[in-house]
Amino acid sequence: MIKDKKVLVVSAHAADYVWRSGGTIAKYIKHGADVHVVVLSFGIRGESAAQWKKEGATYESVRENRLEETTKAAEILGIKNIEFWDLPDYPMAPYLTEEIRDRLIRKIRTVRPDIILTHDRNGKDILNPDHNAVAEFVFECSIQANSRGVITEGLATTKQMRLFGFEPHQTELSQFVPGELIDITEVYEQKVQAMQCFQAQHHLIQYYTERANLRGNHLRRISGNQSYKYGESFSNFFPVAGEELV
Amino acid sequence: MIKDKKVLVVSAHAADYVWRSGGTIAKYIKHGADVHVVVLSFGIRGESAAQWKKEGATYESVRENRLEETTKAAEILGIKNIEFWDLPDYPMAPYLTEEIRDRLIRKIRTVRPDIILTHDRNGKDILNPDHNAVAEFVFECSIQANSRGVITEGLATTKQMRLFGFEPHQTELSQFVPGELIDITEVYEQKVQAMQCFQAQHHLIQYYTERANLRGNHLRRISGNQSYKYGESFSNFFPVAGEELV
Amino acid sequence: MIKDKKVLVVSAHAADYVWRSGGTIAKYIKHGADVHVVVLSFGIRGESAAQWKKEGATYESVRENRLEETTKAAEILGIKNIEFWDLPDYPMAPYLTEEIRDRLIRKIRTVRPDIILTHDRNGKDILNPDHNAVAEFVFECSIQANSRGVITEGLATTKQMRLFGFEPHQTELSQFVPGELIDITEVYEQKVQAMQCFQAQHHLIQYYTERANLRGNHLRRISGNQSYKYGESFSNFFPVAGEELV
Amino acid sequence: MIKDKKVLVVSAHAADYVWRSGGTIAKYIKHGADVHVVVLSFGIRGESAAQWKKEGATYESVRENRLEETTKAAEILGIKNIEFWDLPDYPMAPYLTEEIRDRLIRKIRTVRPDIILTHDRNGKDILNPDHNAVAEFVFECSIQANSRGVITEGLATTKQMRLFGFEPHQTELSQFVPGELIDITEVYEQKVQAMQCFQAQHHLIQYYTERANLRGNHLRRISGNQSYKYGESFSNFFPVAGEELV
Amino acid sequence: MIKDKKVLVVSAHAADYVWRSGGTIAKYIKHGADVHVVVLSFGIRGESAAQWKKEGATYESVRENRLEETTKAAEILGIKNIEFWDLPDYPMAPYLTEEIRDRLIRKIRTVRPDIILTHDRNGKDILNPDHNAVAEFVFECSIQANSRGVITEGLATTKQMRLFGFEPHQTELSQFVPGELIDITEVYEQKVQAMQCFQAQHHLIQYYTERANLRGNHLRRISGNQSYKYGESFSNFFPVAGEELV
Amino acid sequence: MIKDKKVLVVSAHAADYVWRSGGTIAKYIKHGADVHVVVLSFGIRGESAAQWKKEGATYESVRENRLEETTKAAEILGIKNIEFWDLPDYPMAPYLTEEIRDRLIRKIRTVRPDIILTHDRNGKDILNPDHNAVAEFVFECSIQANSRGVITEGLATTKQMRLFGFEPHQTELSQFVPGELIDITEVYEQKVQAMQCFQAQHHLIQYYTERANLRGNHLRRISGNQSYKYGESFSNFFPVAGEELV
Repeated sequence: MIKDKKVLVVSAHAADYVWRSGGTIAKYIKHGADVHVVVLSFGIRGESAAQWKKEGATYESVRENRLEETTKAAEILGIKNIEFWDLPDYPMAPYLTEEIRDRLIRKIRTVRPDIILTHDRNGKDILNPDHNAVAEFVFECSIQANSRGVITEGLATTKQMRLFGFEPHQTELSQFVPGELIDITEVYEQKVQAMQCFQAQHHLIQYYTERANLRGNHLRRISGNQSYKYGESFSNFFPVAGEELV
Repeated sequence: MIKDKKVLVVSAHAADYVWRSGGTIAKYIKHGADVHVVVLSFGIRGESAAQWKKEGATYESVRENRLEETTKAAEILGIKNIEFWDLPDYPMAPYLTEEIRDRLIRKIRTVRPDIILTHDRNGKDILNPDHNAVAEFVFECSIQANSRGVITEGLATTKQMRLFGFEPHQTELSQFVPGELIDITEVYEQKVQAMQCFQAQHHLIQYYTERANLRGNHLRRISGNQSYKYGESFSNFFPVAGEELV
Repeated sequence: MIKDKKVLVVSAHAADYVWRSGGTIAKYIKHGADVHVVVLSFGIRGESAAQWKKEGATYESVRENRLEETTKAAEILGIKNIEFWDLPDYPMAPYLTEEIRDRLIRKIRTVRPDIILTHDRNGKDILNPDHNAVAEFVFECSIQANSRGVITEGLATTKQMRLFGFEPHQTELSQFVPGELIDITEVYEQKVQAMQCFQAQHHLIQYYTERANLRGNHLRRISGNQSYKYGESFSNFFPVAGEELV
Repeated sequence: MIKDKKVLVVSAHAADYVWRSGGTIAKYIKHGADVHVVVLSFGIRGESAAQWKKEGATYESVRENRLEETTKAAEILGIKNIEFWDLPDYPMAPYLTEEIRDRLIRKIRTVRPDIILTHDRNGKDILNPDHNAVAEFVFECSIQANSRGVITEGLATTKQMRLFGFEPHQTELSQFVPGELIDITEVYEQKVQAMQCFQAQHHLIQYYTERANLRGNHLRRISGNQSYKYGESFSNFFPVAGEELV
Repeated sequence: MIKDKKVLVVSAHAADYVWRSGGTIAKYIKHGADVHVVVLSFGIRGESAAQWKKEGATYESVRENRLEETTKAAEILGIKNIEFWDLPDYPMAPYLTEEIRDRLIRKIRTVRPDIILTHDRNGKDILNPDHNAVAEFVFECSIQANSRGVITEGLATTKQMRLFGFEPHQTELSQFVPGELIDITEVYEQKVQAMQCFQAQHHLIQYYTERANLRGNHLRRISGNQSYKYGESFSNFFPVAGEELV
Repeated sequence: MIKDKKVLVVSAHAADYVWRSGGTIAKYIKHGADVHVVVLSFGIRGESAAQWKKEGATYESVRENRLEETTKAAEILGIKNIEFWDLPDYPMAPYLTEEIRDRLIRKIRTVRPDIILTHDRNGKDILNPDHNAVAEFVFECSIQANSRGVITEGLATTKQMRLFGFEPHQTELSQFVPGELIDITEVYEQKVQAMQCFQAQHHLIQYYTERANLRGNHLRRISGNQSYKYGESFSNFFPVAGEELV
């Protein structure tokens, strides 16, 4: 049941969690799940081309702008718990230090998620090295959070949770394969509105709007359920493990 | 819910469905599912080495023996609906004719399964060409059964069902990857008993008994649920497509 | 130069060449290329679900309908040379006989194409076994057409041509990887109109319209050329082989 | 020890066994192994382009020519047991009938090989569909020969032998990966002479001469043994299975 | 011949070398090989869950316990040369510094192994990032040890040795493919006893005991040698390169 | 047109750009392209075995020697712009610092290449970890150079350029797949002469001379153009994206 689930979303840049999982987040929140989002960086260097085109743009002005946009989008999706860790990006890998590792392990042990959503680790993003670095880093932290010998005062070891990977921008070239397709029909309008907070990236708004149709088409084709109009897809880090075939 | 499910199992040889899915079948039947099994061949040529070692063995005597064994095993698993199509094997491909195709499409449209279990199509069995031929054939028939223009008098088109692939004997060399791990703890004893009907293949009884432990270990590790003792695994022909992440 | 090229398109069913390569075909014809299309089947059994829903549909009425639609679409794309071989489909493999092989080899040697467009052979269509069978068959015929010892009275051996594979419907699950992305902006309206000839498959019209946007996005991203609005993508059967890096 | 080995080589066309395994064959024979070669076809249609360029060439004249060449090459390699099954080629698949299957199973059970050399089954030849068909066929026959229930009067079941795959012409595009690299330095001259029997394919003589150097380079690099000058490589159908790491 | 071989085993954590290669180590020692083991860490943080459950466990107490267990296991296997480098783990990557690299290169040049056994580099461990980091690190050090320009006073450059990869815990999900299967029947009891030194991980004792059966089954099936009862498997970093097919 | 192209070549060691792309470089320069080469290291530790065999070799003497050789080779190829960054190698990864990243981004933004040639990123070099590290690093820098928010005073953001990967030494084992084959017939002699500057590596001169033949054979086979005698091959980091099929 969605309502009993705790979800932790770890997003490399300011808007990744919206384009790639905004529908699923909104749906989980709507049905009562406890959703937490960590935005590792504002994507100031790598994902703010439009902002930098503005006359007189500075790191500070771009940061302000991205913070404003993503805060508004998060609100529209119903997200109450969101943190901005404000790491540098492009590249992000050198800033995923042992200190940040400790911080993410603590975050995982605080939220105690049933589900972690982050960038895809099965493939390799053909255009965005930060996404690959974050996927690997979050995976490692999840394994370490589950290990009793990794000690964080006052925070207990977690149990193995499930991890799912976001769709990258160019799926086939990034070896992304959908493991789970999720119907987001009931929250589709919310996702569209949330995406519209990022007006500077208007081509992405169209792109991810159409992608919701495309995954909706796949959902209907694979499930036989004609009521699914819009969808999102995720890779599985692990196989389904449970009591019946799904 | 398991109890509402209709399941069609298509097994290349007389014992495949037992070694590879006996636990899942028993569990589904126990919980009220409607399970149908089609055994395409008795495996007289390819999977009856022990029977052929008996003095004076003939095709007829081996067929009798395999029929007896598998009937007993099916009973132990609780299977009420089982058909033996008695095709030649080793190789089976030349006997998967258009007539047999029509027969299997009709079977699918009669049973109208939510789930089809058969041999793995994602990988390639390193030791058993019949398994590869059957996987491809069942997949094709399922697609055709779902197509309105493939007409079978008196039998309506089916909707897209889910297909899952059996574990081959040598998984890694056959590129088998578990997509779903199913707990079979509550019916484990039944599966062991069913396997014991095939005394001539005693080394396989040990093999698949230990494999149930191995998959149980994986189930516990991946789900965090310590009550899972024994398991079976299947590949997914399609991604999970539904209302929430599983 | 496009205008000097001879192109042979081999389409499994009545509309495949339109959804998957209609823009490229229209562009090549517009610029003076000599384009020939072979439609192997009308897709009566497998790709005419909507037509079969009509009261009193028969094989004949569905055939008429598909012929009419595809003829109109071909006209809109500017295709002057199109043949309908009217093979059965779903499954098509049993009808790709040695006689049909001979016919296709002769067709290749008559057209003498620089380029063959057909279904993808690098991956495996997850939902359409006919596409896989046709990809392999066309590939084989092209190799045989190029072989001097395969004798067809009055028709000379061809030279190695280039082969490209269509996008399947569910790309990632079918292991399709774009090898070449082609800008179709200038003929986009023609493709849309041609697709609208297949009103019974209206969901596919939307699907492939949006896919043209998606590939247009990828084209811009990868080429840096912002004038590319719409695109189509193809897999390469062979590497690029020539005088400079492209 | 090489001298105790029985080897069966199954070659799709008249010269494949020479280009791809001539050195290994010569070496095994030199050291006392019992080597048998089956040449399934003369490659009249697919591998005799040069012969067909001759004025007035006919199927008969090409066959004569190929038979003469390959007989001479076999002699140079020291092969005493060679059979020409004279199947049609390009395509060969339709002629790999159940009758030919029975014949090959009997051949395997007569020779009782420790090693079978044939075309690669791990990858997929990018240019030669016959090679793929033969690889699969030989693999299937080997499995069936090992099965007690596949009865051939007067010929006992074989035990699991080892299978190795030839290098295709374009290795990387055909997904060929060397599993074993064999030093052929001591018989290199013999292989060169045997290749020179196929003067019509002079470009292949150079090609496979240089490939022997290339594999020699790899042999030295991987083994550290500087006395290896020339080599051949093969894919493994199965892992190494024995008493120590090799 | 095993007796002439020098072997270096590099184990990420305290027990990896036992679970994954204990039989092969014992066999090589029994037959006179010179075996050296480097244990990079005690696995205090990542592989000591059971120890941490004990009342009042500390890093020191866990280290003591792991050292004691593994020393006893090493003794049972007959290992005379074992070093504990006591690196932190979970994660280990940040501690595989240039200093440790230099130390491992010196170790390799001191031992001068014919064979290095370590974690698998062909696949990617789905549950243990340390294993992946160690596999890559040992591979790099082996390449560097073989390079004349990497200077270590008083220690000569090594020649290319062979590298083999351990089985990970979840083989298929970690893309592990057995390259060599080694019979360990004669030392199986020793391996079981050695594993029993790790009583805290009793579920792993069963797991790797059964895995020895499973690999024994594969060994018999692939080699045809019925005397092989128990086995271990390894991936090959390089192809077999030598004088005959194995 | 080649003459309008700007090309940046990034070579891990002193001779990589010659063995792997010397023909393409010479051809591009001959036809008027603007070619810049960055040699990251002299390969003193990893690629100078022969130099280290000389009596009394020191880091300084080896550096001198490699500089002299590569300068001469560059001259023969017609290269006017070449820089030696003199990083340590074996391993190089620890020296690909944020400072070097900044330097390479500036270099890219200064040259503003249409094409970057560097080591292959699609596969994984089986024998040379430096090549893998450089491939990843150059790819990352290219992405970052194209990003407006990565600010380098006085140097404008670049547009997406094309990236191509060098052939590694052992292609199949390194998962290298040719994406583009380039005819170098007209500059072949120049490449051979350039390679001869590295007399200490005479076995590589033969190796890459023969490889040019091998790729020439592939070029003829795939293009049908018989005038192509010698070739080089490269992997594509991205699909072809343009106005027509190539």
